[in-house]
Amino acid sequence: MLKIALIGAGNLGLHLFEAWCESSEVQLTQWLNRSYSKPSCKGVAVIQEPYALACADAYVLALPDREIASVSSQLPTTGMALHTSGSIPLEELKNQGEKGILYPLQSFSKKQSVAFDRIPIFLESQNKTQQTFLEQLAKSLSSNFFWMDSKQRLQLHIAAIFVNNFTNHLYQIGADLCQKNNIPFSVLLPLIQTTAAKMQKLSPKEAQTGPAQRKEAAIIEKHLEYLDNPQQKELYQKLTMAIQQQYNDEL
Amino acid sequence: MLKIALIGAGNLGLHLFEAWCESSEVQLTQWLNRSYSKPSCKGVAVIQEPYALACADAYVLALPDREIASVSSQLPTTGMALHTSGSIPLEELKNQGEKGILYPLQSFSKKQSVAFDRIPIFLESQNKTQQTFLEQLAKSLSSNFFWMDSKQRLQLHIAAIFVNNFTNHLYQIGADLCQKNNIPFSVLLPLIQTTAAKMQKLSPKEAQTGPAQRKEAAIIEKHLEYLDNPQQKELYQKLTMAIQQQYNDEL
Repeated sequence: MLKIALIGAGNLGLHLFEAWCESSEVQLTQWLNRSYSKPSCKGVAVIQEPYALACADAYVLALPDREIASVSSQLPTTGMALHTSGSIPLEELKNQGEKGILYPLQSFSKKQSVAFDRIPIFLESQNKTQQTFLEQLAKSLSSNFFWMDSKQRLQLHIAAIFVNNFTNHLYQIGADLCQKNNIPFSVLLPLIQTTAAKMQKLSPKEAQTGPAQRKEAAIIEKHLEYLDNPQQKELYQKLTMAIQQQYNDEL
Repeated sequence: MLKIALIGAGNLGLHLFEAWCESSEVQLTQWLNRSYSKPSCKGVAVIQEPYALACADAYVLALPDREIASVSSQLPTTGMALHTSGSIPLEELKNQGEKGILYPLQSFSKKQSVAFDRIPIFLESQNKTQQTFLEQLAKSLSSNFFWMDSKQRLQLHIAAIFVNNFTNHLYQIGADLCQKNNIPFSVLLPLIQTTAAKMQKLSPKEAQTGPAQRKEAAIIEKHLEYLDNPQQKELYQKLTMAIQQQYNDEL
């Protein structure tokens, strides 16, 4: 069994805690958790500070990006430090021992349960001899893992921000327009689901519909006229132009 | 049985044809279809021009917005004209008989089959006496129907463009970044599905995560530095600002 110390109790930390608490392949030894909520797991000691960390096979840092360098510099000198960030290179781990990356590509919310087995996990190591260990750790969460260097992982993280954080903001605008016009947001849910589900069968290019793709100038003008919020109006314009540009480029 | 003539064979027209061809409540009498592809249905005559339309209980116009006025002016003088557009008011129907709206809120692609029974349908009529007829027609597709005036419907259509067309463009940017960096787009699919599925349980505000929401200025700067495409860079900036603005407003 791999002995793992987990560091962090944010959205990702909490879900890793729950997954590894149930795991038969990983023995969670310590959990650095400074939050108020402390779910318990048999055999796992909750600690408050990095100096209280005992030796383990790996220290998994589920921390904000800006804390990775400082916390990793305080780890025990043996065992591998792993961070879970999309945009931070391997070199930002400042521990004296081995370094690696375990980046699960998902948006974690505390209120929403997670099935790790369907989440792709992106791994990076310093050398080939560490790969068996990292694969074993990844498999304790998901068999859907890939090797990727820091440069590719950064681009993947940017892509993820577009399809997740920014998409969620477009849902927010939809919710805002519904609320202002006494329409229940729930009527948009089948459309939101279908838009996402289409990606299983069609490319985004094949799936695109709407006034921008059809270049319906009169309808676009009308929508801009009836959008009161200047920021929403600007996003409508920019996104419409981006869609039209894409279809122009192909002529 | 309601006798319906269907006008149009685009993305929506084709799916309405398929649904009503199978229906026990609607008898499709004629289909105005000028496209090359002509699926057949027993008892349905395919015609090419509005002057060939025979009398029916309703003429359902599944047409581009700009053709609604002109085609509706050529309809037989009896029976109700119905359009299926989000942004066109009822008055733009120029037939001499009754007028109504049947707006199914969904993004239709020819290659993707449609389950109408889960699609919300928004109805509008000129007066109360027409409501029974319109409800009967809507029920032939879905029991999930609502009454809504043209002003609300326009706002709902704008909301739908944000959560569907614009979201699909964000998927396109994700696909583009993956392609440029030799990453299979399929690794983004679980994230796309989860982002949409979260809306069943969380509000967009509760579901928001990421560098913009956490105000991680260093990561945002890094992403902008590594985004080569100026249009993608601008959208990243505008959407990040919009998310930050939302969370600032709540302080």
